[in-house]
Amino acid sequence: MQVTFGELKAFLEDHFPQGAAYGTLQELGDGWAEMKLEVDDDHLRPGGTVSGPVMMGLADVAMYAALLGKIGLVPLAVTTNFNINFMRKPAAHAAVWARATLLKVGRTMAVGEVSIYSTGMEEPVAHATMTYSIPPEKHGP
Amino acid sequence: MQVTFGELKAFLEDHFPQGAAYGTLQELGDGWAEMKLEVDDDHLRPGGTVSGPVMMGLADVAMYAALLGKIGLVPLAVTTNFNINFMRKPAAHAAVWARATLLKVGRTMAVGEVSIYSTGMEEPVAHATMTYSIPPEKHGP
Amino acid sequence: MQVTFGELKAFLEDHFPQGAAYGTLQELGDGWAEMKLEVDDDHLRPGGTVSGPVMMGLADVAMYAALLGKIGLVPLAVTTNFNINFMRKPAAHAAVWARATLLKVGRTMAVGEVSIYSTGMEEPVAHATMTYSIPPEKHGP
Amino acid sequence: MQVTFGELKAFLEDHFPQGAAYGTLQELGDGWAEMKLEVDDDHLRPGGTVSGPVMMGLADVAMYAALLGKIGLVPLAVTTNFNINFMRKPAAHAAVWARATLLKVGRTMAVGEVSIYSTGMEEPVAHATMTYSIPPEKHGP
Repeated sequence: MQVTFGELKAFLEDHFPQGAAYGTLQELGDGWAEMKLEVDDDHLRPGGTVSGPVMMGLADVAMYAALLGKIGLVPLAVTTNFNINFMRKPAAHAAVWARATLLKVGRTMAVGEVSIYSTGMEEPVAHATMTYSIPPEKHGP
Repeated sequence: MQVTFGELKAFLEDHFPQGAAYGTLQELGDGWAEMKLEVDDDHLRPGGTVSGPVMMGLADVAMYAALLGKIGLVPLAVTTNFNINFMRKPAAHAAVWARATLLKVGRTMAVGEVSIYSTGMEEPVAHATMTYSIPPEKHGP
Repeated sequence: MQVTFGELKAFLEDHFPQGAAYGTLQELGDGWAEMKLEVDDDHLRPGGTVSGPVMMGLADVAMYAALLGKIGLVPLAVTTNFNINFMRKPAAHAAVWARATLLKVGRTMAVGEVSIYSTGMEEPVAHATMTYSIPPEKHGP
Repeated sequence: MQVTFGELKAFLEDHFPQGAAYGTLQELGDGWAEMKLEVDDDHLRPGGTVSGPVMMGLADVAMYAALLGKIGLVPLAVTTNFNINFMRKPAAHAAVWARATLLKVGRTMAVGEVSIYSTGMEEPVAHATMTYSIPPEKHGP
């Protein structure tokens, strides 16, 4: 791992402050990251559960964190494909968690998967896979 | 089409007020809907472009609108699978548009596709497909 | 379009002869291709309908044809992401058709969508999207 | 697990004999299955590697096996969404393996993921996720 938890957290706060609306970094490992989102009324959809886009945003940002923790602070890494299956109804007012794991990091692209959990439920509520495109100059600011 | 533009707009404002953060309904047809999002700084990601989750949310809500316009105001219709390809960099401060089209509406599930455009660019910036699960009682409030 | 129908057909027969098991080229346009597969017992799955993998193979090869028709005979273009929604049960012994359309052709990647039809049915039976990676040297043999 | 390895193997041979072209069952556990495909020239694509559709078929049939091992011999369970990321080039003439794991089994739908390996390579060559629709009558022949 090239980047420490503190460095990545500071980078996200500086370069992607509105990313906090999607989730905040909890843990960072070699090829993985965990993010958490405290759920409030703005995150709910008809039916009183966490909306799909909220979980998509959390998954996408968690993978961004896992990738930047691995390859360095490359702000311009961008998602190219994102796929998610919603499997279970999350609890309405419980925090949601995402665990992002890299499956492959190549020179110009990366692939990863994310499991999303609702606090208090054992089984994941959603599962996402995604590909990221890595720009040629792999160096952060 | 079972639902008028005005009925759907009122339904979304009543039952999903925070959905306006994802986009607002512009047009509604038989099996399709168009939504628009005015982009501000909160929608940008590192690199100064519209973030992926913003486009995902817009696509998801546009399809929800197209579906409810077709089957009636069924709040508990939920996304089960969502897939998106990001193809071009949208302009930073231009509104984004989504055109959602239903490909199939069955008794318990629906499939659709969404093209996303950035104002001023001719080609779509992203393309999404998704499946929705329709609960057994297909009647709105 | 850089490649003629005859050139592409000859290329596929020479370089990908087993591709005929997935479908044969019917038409080629600027950014699109149509392929057809005559269905026999080997293509069926339990329940007596065309199996999913048969439609996946047809979709993938149709997009390969559309792409090579556009960028030239680049054998090493490879699928990186493939997503398909199965929407309707195809007829058991009717030919299946795929219409592949490019949504974006960039320098190193392409995105497209494919609609699959069962002869005699008006609505598509499946819809796929996929991304292709284009190797740096974009020249055919 | 409701079904034994021998029962499932016999079922697949009886009801889906051409499925052997996609892979043969190696192991079956509670919520997972492993399938293997011996690769020959018919499975290769331009560039001399295993073709995408071959890996898609293997993944799809492996998940079908994992699901039927779990819910019983329900022939009419059908794939509704299939998504795959191709990550590494498999070896040309080495067998490919798929390990399918169920992520959720509901009353009417199931979700799972599949990792595909090329014999002799440690990292997976592809990763798929898919949803299956389970018909109301959940009993095998």
